[in-house]
Amino acid sequence: MSTITSPLQPGDQKIVGEALQGALVDLLDLSLLAKQAHWNVIGPNFRQIHLHLDEIVTFARTHADTVAERAVALGVTPDGRASTVAGSSQVPQVEGGYLDAGKVVSAMTDILESIGRRMRERVEATAEADPPTQDILIAVTQDVEKHHWMMQAQR
Amino acid sequence: MSTITSPLQPGDQKIVGEALQGALVDLLDLSLLAKQAHWNVIGPNFRQIHLHLDEIVTFARTHADTVAERAVALGVTPDGRASTVAGSSQVPQVEGGYLDAGKVVSAMTDILESIGRRMRERVEATAEADPPTQDILIAVTQDVEKHHWMMQAQR
Amino acid sequence: MSTITSPLQPGDQKIVGEALQGALVDLLDLSLLAKQAHWNVIGPNFRQIHLHLDEIVTFARTHADTVAERAVALGVTPDGRASTVAGSSQVPQVEGGYLDAGKVVSAMTDILESIGRRMRERVEATAEADPPTQDILIAVTQDVEKHHWMMQAQR
Amino acid sequence: MSTITSPLQPGDQKIVGEALQGALVDLLDLSLLAKQAHWNVIGPNFRQIHLHLDEIVTFARTHADTVAERAVALGVTPDGRASTVAGSSQVPQVEGGYLDAGKVVSAMTDILESIGRRMRERVEATAEADPPTQDILIAVTQDVEKHHWMMQAQR
Amino acid sequence: MSTITSPLQPGDQKIVGEALQGALVDLLDLSLLAKQAHWNVIGPNFRQIHLHLDEIVTFARTHADTVAERAVALGVTPDGRASTVAGSSQVPQVEGGYLDAGKVVSAMTDILESIGRRMRERVEATAEADPPTQDILIAVTQDVEKHHWMMQAQR
Amino acid sequence: MSTITSPLQPGDQKIVGEALQGALVDLLDLSLLAKQAHWNVIGPNFRQIHLHLDEIVTFARTHADTVAERAVALGVTPDGRASTVAGSSQVPQVEGGYLDAGKVVSAMTDILESIGRRMRERVEATAEADPPTQDILIAVTQDVEKHHWMMQAQR
Amino acid sequence: MSTITSPLQPGDQKIVGEALQGALVDLLDLSLLAKQAHWNVIGPNFRQIHLHLDEIVTFARTHADTVAERAVALGVTPDGRASTVAGSSQVPQVEGGYLDAGKVVSAMTDILESIGRRMRERVEATAEADPPTQDILIAVTQDVEKHHWMMQAQR
Amino acid sequence: MSTITSPLQPGDQKIVGEALQGALVDLLDLSLLAKQAHWNVIGPNFRQIHLHLDEIVTFARTHADTVAERAVALGVTPDGRASTVAGSSQVPQVEGGYLDAGKVVSAMTDILESIGRRMRERVEATAEADPPTQDILIAVTQDVEKHHWMMQAQR
Amino acid sequence: MSTITSPLQPGDQKIVGEALQGALVDLLDLSLLAKQAHWNVIGPNFRQIHLHLDEIVTFARTHADTVAERAVALGVTPDGRASTVAGSSQVPQVEGGYLDAGKVVSAMTDILESIGRRMRERVEATAEADPPTQDILIAVTQDVEKHHWMMQAQR
Amino acid sequence: MSTITSPLQPGDQKIVGEALQGALVDLLDLSLLAKQAHWNVIGPNFRQIHLHLDEIVTFARTHADTVAERAVALGVTPDGRASTVAGSSQVPQVEGGYLDAGKVVSAMTDILESIGRRMRERVEATAEADPPTQDILIAVTQDVEKHHWMMQAQR
Amino acid sequence: MSTITSPLQPGDQKIVGEALQGALVDLLDLSLLAKQAHWNVIGPNFRQIHLHLDEIVTFARTHADTVAERAVALGVTPDGRASTVAGSSQVPQVEGGYLDAGKVVSAMTDILESIGRRMRERVEATAEADPPTQDILIAVTQDVEKHHWMMQAQR
Amino acid sequence: MSTITSPLQPGDQKIVGEALQGALVDLLDLSLLAKQAHWNVIGPNFRQIHLHLDEIVTFARTHADTVAERAVALGVTPDGRASTVAGSSQVPQVEGGYLDAGKVVSAMTDILESIGRRMRERVEATAEADPPTQDILIAVTQDVEKHHWMMQAQR
Repeated sequence: MSTITSPLQPGDQKIVGEALQGALVDLLDLSLLAKQAHWNVIGPNFRQIHLHLDEIVTFARTHADTVAERAVALGVTPDGRASTVAGSSQVPQVEGGYLDAGKVVSAMTDILESIGRRMRERVEATAEADPPTQDILIAVTQDVEKHHWMMQAQR
Repeated sequence: MSTITSPLQPGDQKIVGEALQGALVDLLDLSLLAKQAHWNVIGPNFRQIHLHLDEIVTFARTHADTVAERAVALGVTPDGRASTVAGSSQVPQVEGGYLDAGKVVSAMTDILESIGRRMRERVEATAEADPPTQDILIAVTQDVEKHHWMMQAQR
Repeated sequence: MSTITSPLQPGDQKIVGEALQGALVDLLDLSLLAKQAHWNVIGPNFRQIHLHLDEIVTFARTHADTVAERAVALGVTPDGRASTVAGSSQVPQVEGGYLDAGKVVSAMTDILESIGRRMRERVEATAEADPPTQDILIAVTQDVEKHHWMMQAQR
Repeated sequence: MSTITSPLQPGDQKIVGEALQGALVDLLDLSLLAKQAHWNVIGPNFRQIHLHLDEIVTFARTHADTVAERAVALGVTPDGRASTVAGSSQVPQVEGGYLDAGKVVSAMTDILESIGRRMRERVEATAEADPPTQDILIAVTQDVEKHHWMMQAQR
Repeated sequence: MSTITSPLQPGDQKIVGEALQGALVDLLDLSLLAKQAHWNVIGPNFRQIHLHLDEIVTFARTHADTVAERAVALGVTPDGRASTVAGSSQVPQVEGGYLDAGKVVSAMTDILESIGRRMRERVEATAEADPPTQDILIAVTQDVEKHHWMMQAQR
Repeated sequence: MSTITSPLQPGDQKIVGEALQGALVDLLDLSLLAKQAHWNVIGPNFRQIHLHLDEIVTFARTHADTVAERAVALGVTPDGRASTVAGSSQVPQVEGGYLDAGKVVSAMTDILESIGRRMRERVEATAEADPPTQDILIAVTQDVEKHHWMMQAQR
Repeated sequence: MSTITSPLQPGDQKIVGEALQGALVDLLDLSLLAKQAHWNVIGPNFRQIHLHLDEIVTFARTHADTVAERAVALGVTPDGRASTVAGSSQVPQVEGGYLDAGKVVSAMTDILESIGRRMRERVEATAEADPPTQDILIAVTQDVEKHHWMMQAQR
Repeated sequence: MSTITSPLQPGDQKIVGEALQGALVDLLDLSLLAKQAHWNVIGPNFRQIHLHLDEIVTFARTHADTVAERAVALGVTPDGRASTVAGSSQVPQVEGGYLDAGKVVSAMTDILESIGRRMRERVEATAEADPPTQDILIAVTQDVEKHHWMMQAQR
Repeated sequence: MSTITSPLQPGDQKIVGEALQGALVDLLDLSLLAKQAHWNVIGPNFRQIHLHLDEIVTFARTHADTVAERAVALGVTPDGRASTVAGSSQVPQVEGGYLDAGKVVSAMTDILESIGRRMRERVEATAEADPPTQDILIAVTQDVEKHHWMMQAQR
Repeated sequence: MSTITSPLQPGDQKIVGEALQGALVDLLDLSLLAKQAHWNVIGPNFRQIHLHLDEIVTFARTHADTVAERAVALGVTPDGRASTVAGSSQVPQVEGGYLDAGKVVSAMTDILESIGRRMRERVEATAEADPPTQDILIAVTQDVEKHHWMMQAQR
Repeated sequence: MSTITSPLQPGDQKIVGEALQGALVDLLDLSLLAKQAHWNVIGPNFRQIHLHLDEIVTFARTHADTVAERAVALGVTPDGRASTVAGSSQVPQVEGGYLDAGKVVSAMTDILESIGRRMRERVEATAEADPPTQDILIAVTQDVEKHHWMMQAQR
Repeated sequence: MSTITSPLQPGDQKIVGEALQGALVDLLDLSLLAKQAHWNVIGPNFRQIHLHLDEIVTFARTHADTVAERAVALGVTPDGRASTVAGSSQVPQVEGGYLDAGKVVSAMTDILESIGRRMRERVEATAEADPPTQDILIAVTQDVEKHHWMMQAQR
């Protein structure tokens, strides 16, 4: 079976590959956690949070696909299996069962803050190694920080 | 914090809740595994499999949402977090790294066969307990078995 | 004037006809009451409830049309006139004038619970008599119970 | 619970409020009666009348919403409950059961003529009191009289 | 050449396969006969019948595809060739040449009545053997009986 | 450079020109203030207010364009420059920095009440002078008063 | 053959009927003349005038249909035949053959000025007799005067 | 003022120019007559004829534009002014006032037959002189003869 | 019952009628055979052939309708019943049961070659008799030969 | 490697192949030159020419694809490589650098005149050899001559 | 009232906040000035400039929203009130009253040149401080410079 | 004739101009070569490659337009004429005639690798000279490398 050749030197490929795999895990976990809250949220603001969470799911899924396809285009195989996400995610988790609306707002604010922080590190790490990858991670950061503001604003 | 009242009797609620939670884990894992193969597949038929896998992702995500929202409407809190999926899924997994196209076809055939078998058990289990839930699971089964055929047909 | 022949035996036709006429009255009254609340609701969550109520109106109208057309296809003439709805509806009513948002949430939760209960009885009643009718009533029940959850969740 | 302040003086508000409430009842009853005929009509022209009636339902529902929202914007609470429609409507009713196509055309011609007449009185009544309301009622009158012509033309 | 494995036991597969093949022939013949009438109808109601027949063609083609794909997903090869349809169809035929509008309405009423009757038998036959197939046949029956009413109503 | 001839007599042109220029300033300032609040609002109802404000921006911009194009069609040059808006606007302003959600609701209620009052004066002023202009101002008034109700309702 | 009853008194019907017939002839002739210029215009600004003229054709046709259907709804039969348009139109005509772009701008400015003047007389004439008709003629006037400005502006 | 050079020899240009001018007059008159009937038709089949006539208007307008633009592309100035249509049309006219549905069907059948006959002569006349023009006239003929059949079929 | 008058002389009508009836049978049989292969194809290229076959079904159905409607517009009644197709088709048939992908490609290449050959004969036969019919058959030939190339290219 | 069989005799195939290859080069060069002018045009009419040129690019690309696919369907391999276009094109070229608007209009008029002339020769050359190809070239000629008129009209 | 936490250090936040506030004022003033010219422009090229200006308004509004939302996501409150725009804008202004087309082209060229220059300074200022903000400002610069070219090109 | 002023210093303008002209030639040649292969490819995977190549054409054309318009916005005149592309392209060419599918995959992999390598050099070359241009070239690189992976994956 053939493999994909990389336009990057091995050193850069390693840096960029780690940044993209880390971003993939963050985004897939974000999509799963936002859905989890979308289903289990309870409270007077139910509907606006329920709908807002689905917008987060949508951008998380779209960016996850872009990030993973960028990895494979660089000769790095992305890993988005459940066990990989569960085993390597650094995203703060939410508990099972019903979730109070206020708690969802706090948890999502923390989740987005945590992911945004790591995305900024990846933006910095890839600046020299691969500007096209950095450009993708910048777009992810813009959306993560935008929704962080919108979540935090409703506290 | 208030909770959601159930239209079902406790016994039926338990049967139906287990069926829906099981279906949710199957569908979320299917969506993650089909994406994993969508990114890592290699081979002469790359493009048609790559595109076919995204259709599977689409129906898996749509049905997962319907199944989870059905659960919460019955007073059962669905759990779709990565650790729950990784810990309780009975779906055959794919290995990491590049995946040969032929291997993807075999693996997806097995995955869809495995999920289809459990869906049929859930269709039977919910027939008496909650016909509206059974109706949702029947629709899931139709799609799972349709794509099982289409995958198997290209072996 | 000719009439429509029925594919059902008279006994089944009677059972199914009553279920469909009952469902029609429930759904038309739901559409009128949800509009009434859509216009008169007052409170901090005004906008999200105002918009949610219009989604309820939309599904109530769509299902009412399907239910009534199913009746006439079975040789049963549906009756959806205002006097029939006002005279035979078992749906809890809302008072005239401004409606506090909290009161709307409670009232709509009760209304949907009440309709959902009767729909389940109709699903059971038609199972033997006419599976195609049961299938329609199952779809109605799914939507009624879904919006019951969403209303109750914002209490 | 707060209420909505009115841009109108009490006297004008009363005139305009009555006109809008009357228009609302006319339009809701029109939407219910046109659906009733849409379902129960029988005759060689079945299909063209069946489809025409649904266009009438559509404009009746749209105008009813505009009229009711205009009322509440003026500090007047609209009442569109089934019992209010049944109890205060001046629209000629249709009988239950199958409706011969010719009879439907005659009945709908009378219904639209009756509503059109009252709408013209409301257009006149609101001319001084509230031109923005008059403008809405003029648009209703245009549609009512247009469909009155189209119904009458097929007699 | 590989074949498709079936999720059904041989006995159930045989029952369900016959029901689906029968439904396929009925639906393909319906699509051909409705087109035949669509082209050859003559009479004062030409246009509304001409357009109605195309709606019947549309649902017949859509359901035929669903039914045939369900068969192959169950390991049963569907047969929709002209000679098979001509040789095994139980649908009442229309004569060649111009068709008077009244005759078309009568013929289509009989055709839809005939197909509806067999569909009901298939709904019953598949209830135990394969609920997902029964669900598809129920949807077919709903459309067949709906258009049977609409055809019969214009007699 | 040529200019545009007016269909109005000079006296009417002056009355109508002033009404349209006043409406233009009101609408442009409304669009800027609603965007200001759209960006700076903070509070538990953040999202529904954030989205509602954008609908106000949309109608304000659309009506501003219609009003300005009506002016130029009457030989009156509209002035929508920032200094003109800042210098002549009578709309109550909002302070800089974060805006509490409750304060936004109050401020927007006052803003819309203030604009609505002036629009009604313009509707009256143009009734004789130019009915086509009055018709445009009536449509503006309908939207201003509708959103005044919706804002006030969530206090 | 039956005819359409009018909601107007004979005197008002006569006034309104003449206004609508006059508007119909103006609008149909406008649509024909704008097309004539659309095809035959020559000059450096060819393209922008060619496209602008088609927008005029579009609004002329749309308003002509509304105006004619308003007439028949009032029991007045509209006449839009070529001989009637040619025989009764008061619209300034354009000569045959190629039309210089500058000449087209002048001619269309005059044509729209001429039609606008008559529309204003009709708006006045119908104010008392039939406000719903006046409302339609006001909308026509708005479009005619808007395009008069745009044509004149490019002189 | 410049003019448009022709790709045709003078003799061919003359033949083709006459064919296109003739087709233009036929199509514009068809569009005006079909609208005249669309507004004034009365009878039990009112609605299906009313809608059918608007489809004829649509194709007549579209083809008229294509035909006229073909003429000018060949250096021939098309003439579609009302006086030209009224003065040179060979299309059978309809009388003023209400038109009985049966009479409309007969008149439109004759009108389309008459236009179709002349179009066939133009197809023949342009075959040698300009195949691209013939191709346009063939498309016109197809639509004219198709609607001739559909009109005639409802006699 | 009236019939449709033909714009053609009897001799031409006979030639053209036979060409159109032959084309209709070819296209209907093509649509049935392509669907048959769409359902039963098996092999590594399953998906691209499965999707390609549906494009063939789509153009076959669209052209069949155009061809049949052209026939009736010429006073010739088309016959598209299953027995007619089965009894008169000259299209090479496919066997029942699963179809190997390679065999499908060969069979469809032969089928399209066979139909294309007969279409060319019909294009020639109708050139003098009825150019508008020839134009339709040319469009059919273009699509048949295009898909013949695409099928053959994947051998 | 297999090749595509041709429905044409070798002599006809040669004639038609040359016509299609010539048309392909003309159309590809037209698309490149119109883009060149789209980017480099300067002058008061910049915008309308800039936009017009993109419409020319669009039709040139669409027709080029149709022409090339027709060639391959006839067993002739089309050649659209840059060196082939540059080496064999007979289209008048434009110089590099900024292009004055007036010069663009002249150049495009000449370019379209030149291509139109060759297309007419190809229409004639293919009339006997392959009517389906002629039909495609006629459609190309119609668009080329239409845009030749529109360009020339703005000189 | 809570505020939004910033992912930036205070020093970077100050630099980025000033850049974004400056960009916001530039873009809002651009949107107001382009509308001012859109309404008041007079001259032979009226239409193409009138339409071009609306595209500038559209991108100015869209970018203004993105820029302001980026600011608030970074804990900086944007200020887009009329008095702020009027008081701090550095954009060259246009005079009141009619604007000659040539003057509009010159003025808009200067306005876009002026804004483009400041945007480039902001792109440089934010490169280190916040790459995601720089990315947004780069996109603004691309559009400003593109429309600067298009305006300048029509001088 | 005026020219376009550049926001760049002459040195930067030269660097950026060469990068953009180089990118333009690469992208135009890519669009022509991908079309060449789209038409001439032969082999079992014909259809998936045929469709994939058209996606490459689409992005190549879109990016070519963006790149060329960026050049002219910077005062650099782009050159996309066939002779320029043929004379200066560094893209590996494909031979004429039929192209075996495997050979197409190899050739396109090489072509995209070659273009991607030069794009990366241009991304580096423009980083200092003009970040907005670099941003455009980064987007081009992302698409080139993505399709390089997808082509290579099917080897």
